[in-house]
Amino acid sequence: MPATLNSVAVAAGVSTSTASRALSGHPSVLPTTRARVEAAAAALRYQPNRTASALRTRRTGLLGLVVNNLRTATFHTIAETLQSWAGDHDYQVLVCTTGGNPDREADFLRSVRAHHFDGVVVAGSGANTDLVNGLVEDGRAVVTMNREVPGSLAPSVMSAYEQAARLATEHLIGLGHVRIGVIGGPPEVTSGRLHHAGFTAAMAAAGLPVDPDLVHRGPFTPDVGQAAAKELMAHPEPPTALLVSNHEASFGALPALGERGLEVPGELSVVCTEDEPFYSWWSPPLTTVDNRAALQAQRAAALLLAQLTGAGVDEPVRRAELVEPLLVVRGSTAPPRVS
Amino acid sequence: MPATLNSVAVAAGVSTSTASRALSGHPSVLPTTRARVEAAAAALRYQPNRTASALRTRRTGLLGLVVNNLRTATFHTIAETLQSWAGDHDYQVLVCTTGGNPDREADFLRSVRAHHFDGVVVAGSGANTDLVNGLVEDGRAVVTMNREVPGSLAPSVMSAYEQAARLATEHLIGLGHVRIGVIGGPPEVTSGRLHHAGFTAAMAAAGLPVDPDLVHRGPFTPDVGQAAAKELMAHPEPPTALLVSNHEASFGALPALGERGLEVPGELSVVCTEDEPFYSWWSPPLTTVDNRAALQAQRAAALLLAQLTGAGVDEPVRRAELVEPLLVVRGSTAPPRVS
Repeated sequence: MPATLNSVAVAAGVSTSTASRALSGHPSVLPTTRARVEAAAAALRYQPNRTASALRTRRTGLLGLVVNNLRTATFHTIAETLQSWAGDHDYQVLVCTTGGNPDREADFLRSVRAHHFDGVVVAGSGANTDLVNGLVEDGRAVVTMNREVPGSLAPSVMSAYEQAARLATEHLIGLGHVRIGVIGGPPEVTSGRLHHAGFTAAMAAAGLPVDPDLVHRGPFTPDVGQAAAKELMAHPEPPTALLVSNHEASFGALPALGERGLEVPGELSVVCTEDEPFYSWWSPPLTTVDNRAALQAQRAAALLLAQLTGAGVDEPVRRAELVEPLLVVRGSTAPPRVS
Repeated sequence: MPATLNSVAVAAGVSTSTASRALSGHPSVLPTTRARVEAAAAALRYQPNRTASALRTRRTGLLGLVVNNLRTATFHTIAETLQSWAGDHDYQVLVCTTGGNPDREADFLRSVRAHHFDGVVVAGSGANTDLVNGLVEDGRAVVTMNREVPGSLAPSVMSAYEQAARLATEHLIGLGHVRIGVIGGPPEVTSGRLHHAGFTAAMAAAGLPVDPDLVHRGPFTPDVGQAAAKELMAHPEPPTALLVSNHEASFGALPALGERGLEVPGELSVVCTEDEPFYSWWSPPLTTVDNRAALQAQRAAALLLAQLTGAGVDEPVRRAELVEPLLVVRGSTAPPRVS
């Protein structure tokens, strides 16, 4: 008879739940405890039966999706892509938008567990590691995306944010821009941190200095974008190009540029990241780095399905996928005007 | 002891379920059966106890929301407003987007029932009357909005579509426009039918003829909007003003106008209905008739809460609320150029 998780727990002198957490690498388990559980598992030749667990949890056909909002194209593209996919696989994806509030996200993750959802995709606040890992350990299919959940045991799909900002910056440098303004997200958030790293890496690779006056980083709101755009344009030596690295900031920055009657790209080249349908309807249509949100959602769906059906679950569950962004050159970028 | 639904059913010689459907006016019950049940209910002085029913069904704290898509501002505003409201009332609103597919909507409505959701808001296809009414009869809180569900027993919240198109048309007529082009939704859908009625009423009231060449009606897609805009502009005597009466059509029509380099409002005044954040970022900012989607959602939330808490349920449940739209004049409308 094969060893059970319970027999491992008894042998190691811990609870079943602790044994499960120890074997899945949960950070809350002390290293000495983990070593004891791993030794017991090895001695008993314990093999976690993930397939049985996956089949056992196929109870409701319900899957959850957490998103911070439904205003930005990234989130509603993820939601629509997952819901369309789910319809083809006899699942339903129920969406919870949280306004980025970790407490509302936590309430939803508790509901996912309480109401026996088969799985959940978390494109949320980046908080709630314990709840995410609790779902993983409970045998639910879990995928995180868009923002890292530090310490998460679930596989993840992320946009290659660093590459996105690098592509955008290299495009501007290639056109001859030297003074490049940036409006970006806060450093404590995955995309904010990595977009900034991509920008500075591209500048450094070209031997260009970064003028701290031209770099504005703040929360994902239109107000932050608007204030930053106004400040950049009021600079005594304004930038000749602008990189706006999130949707929300662009919603404030673009109208601010429009209000000033600024000629784009004549006076200012503009690149936005993440893409939005309206970017191509802007006048001129905006050059962008598309984060391919639909492809991200398809990859998340594949990771979810693998867990739901038990396919490929002998491999380590923890996987991090990066989706490469695409530079889409439209009409808002040009060489700087020679003054 | 007050009469129960069961005693009414026994007296009328029907099942409890049929008795319930007969008393709630469900169309599937034969008139003769309904008369028998109503007579039995009257004889026994049966009083439906809606409060107890509402309290009894407060099981899960889950509410559903059906929307056709999450791309248009109306739907994501409804979703975000309801989810934010729900958070304040210890409920969770789980959103299902269906792509407008009645079958996916039906699957979700069955899940709402099977998983004991306490209620649902249906801003969907307009189909699935039986499933909607089944939820009402089962004691769930149900509100329909955005599109009429013919024969529904649930209270509804609708935008005053006719008034919206009338306001937009009167605004254009007031500026001196006579040849007004229209891109609208299909006649079989509530908003398509009523927007058209509002347009023709305003034209008739001003004694202006409607040129059928200038009226394009079709499904809610950007392609329809794009093709219609191109055809209108290619007309030998093109309109001097354009009313685009749904988001989806505007997503195709506006870029088509931009591509032609058409001067707005110099060569063409443009009004869109329903509002979208990007309408105010367009160049020039677009005059619009705002459907006040957040207010619609707040009204739906109030109707939902009344059913959930049993407040006001002695009044007839069936209520239809209309939310009045607001004309927001921005930069895309002006008097026609004198040629």
